Amino acid sequence: MSEREDLVLAYRILAARGVVDAYGHVSLRTAKNPNRYLLARAMAPELVTADDILEFDLDSNPVKDTQVALYLERYIHGEIFKSRSEIKAVVHNHSPSVIPFGVTTVPLRPLFNTGAFIGEGVPTFEIRDFQESGDLIIKTPYLGHSLATTLGAKPAALMRGHGAVVVGESLMLAVVRSVYLELSAKLQMQAMLIAGPDANIVYLDDAEVAAISGRQAFAGTWKRTWDLWCIKARAQIEMEQRAKRPKASFPVKAGADRRRSRVG
Amino acid sequence: MSEREDLVLAYRILAARGVVDAYGHVSLRTAKNPNRYLLARAMAPELVTADDILEFDLDSNPVKDTQVALYLERYIHGEIFKSRSEIKAVVHNHSPSVIPFGVTTVPLRPLFNTGAFIGEGVPTFEIRDFQESGDLIIKTPYLGHSLATTLGAKPAALMRGHGAVVVGESLMLAVVRSVYLELSAKLQMQAMLIAGPDANIVYLDDAEVAAISGRQAFAGTWKRTWDLWCIKARAQIEMEQRAKRPKASFPVKAGADRRRSRVG
Amino acid sequence: MSEREDLVLAYRILAARGVVDAYGHVSLRTAKNPNRYLLARAMAPELVTADDILEFDLDSNPVKDTQVALYLERYIHGEIFKSRSEIKAVVHNHSPSVIPFGVTTVPLRPLFNTGAFIGEGVPTFEIRDFQESGDLIIKTPYLGHSLATTLGAKPAALMRGHGAVVVGESLMLAVVRSVYLELSAKLQMQAMLIAGPDANIVYLDDAEVAAISGRQAFAGTWKRTWDLWCIKARAQIEMEQRAKRPKASFPVKAGADRRRSRVG
Amino acid sequence: MSEREDLVLAYRILAARGVVDAYGHVSLRTAKNPNRYLLARAMAPELVTADDILEFDLDSNPVKDTQVALYLERYIHGEIFKSRSEIKAVVHNHSPSVIPFGVTTVPLRPLFNTGAFIGEGVPTFEIRDFQESGDLIIKTPYLGHSLATTLGAKPAALMRGHGAVVVGESLMLAVVRSVYLELSAKLQMQAMLIAGPDANIVYLDDAEVAAISGRQAFAGTWKRTWDLWCIKARAQIEMEQRAKRPKASFPVKAGADRRRSRVG
Repeated sequence: MSEREDLVLAYRILAARGVVDAYGHVSLRTAKNPNRYLLARAMAPELVTADDILEFDLDSNPVKDTQVALYLERYIHGEIFKSRSEIKAVVHNHSPSVIPFGVTTVPLRPLFNTGAFIGEGVPTFEIRDFQESGDLIIKTPYLGHSLATTLGAKPAALMRGHGAVVVGESLMLAVVRSVYLELSAKLQMQAMLIAGPDANIVYLDDAEVAAISGRQAFAGTWKRTWDLWCIKARAQIEMEQRAKRPKASFPVKAGADRRRSRVG
Repeated sequence: MSEREDLVLAYRILAARGVVDAYGHVSLRTAKNPNRYLLARAMAPELVTADDILEFDLDSNPVKDTQVALYLERYIHGEIFKSRSEIKAVVHNHSPSVIPFGVTTVPLRPLFNTGAFIGEGVPTFEIRDFQESGDLIIKTPYLGHSLATTLGAKPAALMRGHGAVVVGESLMLAVVRSVYLELSAKLQMQAMLIAGPDANIVYLDDAEVAAISGRQAFAGTWKRTWDLWCIKARAQIEMEQRAKRPKASFPVKAGADRRRSRVG
Repeated sequence: MSEREDLVLAYRILAARGVVDAYGHVSLRTAKNPNRYLLARAMAPELVTADDILEFDLDSNPVKDTQVALYLERYIHGEIFKSRSEIKAVVHNHSPSVIPFGVTTVPLRPLFNTGAFIGEGVPTFEIRDFQESGDLIIKTPYLGHSLATTLGAKPAALMRGHGAVVVGESLMLAVVRSVYLELSAKLQMQAMLIAGPDANIVYLDDAEVAAISGRQAFAGTWKRTWDLWCIKARAQIEMEQRAKRPKASFPVKAGADRRRSRVG
Repeated sequence: MSEREDLVLAYRILAARGVVDAYGHVSLRTAKNPNRYLLARAMAPELVTADDILEFDLDSNPVKDTQVALYLERYIHGEIFKSRSEIKAVVHNHSPSVIPFGVTTVPLRPLFNTGAFIGEGVPTFEIRDFQESGDLIIKTPYLGHSLATTLGAKPAALMRGHGAVVVGESLMLAVVRSVYLELSAKLQMQAMLIAGPDANIVYLDDAEVAAISGRQAFAGTWKRTWDLWCIKARAQIEMEQRAKRPKASFPVKAGADRRRSRVG
């Protein structure tokens, strides 16, 4: 129950910070069974409620029969959970500032304190190396496994022409890293712009990455951000609930209405 | 009736996503008569209500006599509907990130999954090739027809020094493409910035465009975005209605007031 | 009375569109006496109400004695009104995207339809040519007159290291031009970025500027934007008034409170 | 008491203007004892209330015993207050546009009127020159003193790979400078982009900096901005208080709730 509510907040936070739009999803491995993970049914992050969260096994099959539509790319989550036992949460997003780095050979590099984890390495997944269909979607266990292999032990991987995947030893860590990956990409672009073609930029060095990133993953550093965002996400949910109470007079169609009634 | 409400939502969504400001419009071919289309009277998208929607024939004449001002550029819609029987909706906008591409010889190219349709081609309409008046407005059937000819079978065309036109086999498709055309243009600028003058950027290749774009046009891919935006547009409309109920004490002038009373 | 309310809306619109922050001001020549103009007392645009509007003569002296602080740079308005009898409104702003053009030798050029007026010319005022004090503020009639001379018959002038001045044959025109000057500057930067060092950009040519700009100044083109912004500005004012009614429990200090009570 | 409320507003303003996110802090030297300063407990700026403000001595020890978590980097404040008796307030932030300048050798330079203080010099603090741990955090008096030494008599210093520190002879001055440092950095990037590699940019010269910056520090120039932001911050606080009154039905967890109840 609590895990589902945490996951709802994670969805809302990612949407509120612009890291996901109508696409993208975040999963949480269950505490009581490491071979299960929670993920929403196929829907926009901003609309997810606790009732929309489903439980999956690591082959990404729903544990209970369901008629609702599922994310085609849920294999991203299952295959990473299989290959990384320490990972508790996975975010897949189309984070805007990250996409341009995914389509160039310019690597994301660690630029500032809160983006130090980037220094552990952010490889790029090239789907053309694993299939010839021309599709970019991770819609099979094989592609999910291939992405997990490219990710290896890193905190994040770019997906060329598509987006990124970000993982964490906690839900908080996966979400906070997603947000700071976006910010760091934006700042790196700006540093490259002002430094010019010679690009004399002082990135964090290996000692700095080692000193900072590991500590941030477990210490209270991110908690301050996470707590703030949770408070704001809850306030947003409450506002939606209040707005819903006086029945709308504008006619809404059945399909949308049904989904909408699940917002509260 | 339902078509009019859908079109109102389309206007509101385009405004909320920053794809139109006070200018720009979106039309919908009617289901019962393919030789008719719906379009608002000349007004800002954010203010359009069902009462503001008029019906036009394909020569872009209003079907019923009316005293209200009409968009000078309604020929964009009529002439494209004439030349593309499969097209159900047309958006004309001054989408900000798209304008810079319209004035350079740098083509928009497909960069990521949700912008794959750009790979079908986005030609640029140069009005100087069709008239010598110096005006940039598509204010005659001839100019509308010329634009439709430049557009050809493509999903969108840039209009040099002006904006863009985006079409779809459904209203949803034309609106979603408009939003992702804007985003893709922004991301392409950023990719060009970080890739530098040598510009080593991996765009989607033809196989990828073929595999993705056609499927997206008809499958449920865009539905998730569309439903989200409709929910938000309806919430905005309801908020405006609530705000209106307690009569304002600030004196408003007659002209603005009349228009405003149509917001609800 | 009506002129004062129009001017309040102009202040609010400029703030809402990001063209002014706490600085910047807009003036309106009075209809009944062309040797008088209206301008707020020295205050942030977002807070201006009809009670804050004062009347000045063309030497920029307040017509009635007053104890309130006046804008040091009011001479911008008075001196331009003196030299340009057809001008009815003057905006001075620190419009962010315009400032970078003011400090380089790269001229603003007309890029798209709604920015066509830029093609009439936007000269840059270099205050170093007129004084040696090192100050950048137009705090004397002489500096105001010098700026008016640089402006000449143009619709706008940049002020190096400071901001811009924008004029119009109507209040609407000065405000709308201010907003589109900002947008056009932003888009020109982007066009320069994607076009690269060779900068092959197709700007509007003289025929286009001639065909478009003059017409826009007087036809209904801008009315659609203006009306939309006025509606939104009025809604904002009403929202502030409603928020004020239930007396705040948070202790506010006397000085701020007094100013605040004038918001409504 | 009044000092605490002023400091709360400063926290809120910095968050509202995007100069701090969940990190960053601002301190105020107490008027009655120049060897004391006020600073919040370790928490997100947006959530700070008067009850969260603690008093410290210049060694950055809390004057009263406390169980709450303290900012690890509070030495930034104490050491600068020690070395600069005229300074009354210190801001530490991760201001986004400033970070890229901190990692390049391109100096921030004064570009426009409200950023004139930058012309007094904004040095960059390279923590590698003072320790070998690889950490970037100012978590000892020694590092705080080193930063204060780099800052010298300047109004601000960048911290490589981290953020910035900004100081003022008043709380208002430190806050306003923080906001305009961010804006000026953004505009300088844009000026560099449009000026190109030859970078022919007219920065404020020494005479201009001398004429403007000193005057701005003490005259009423910044008061207009400060008053506006205080009014908006108070309105935001009042809105939060109103939103809190009808008890939320969404279950919130104890930890977050406790913190939240301190918002009002």
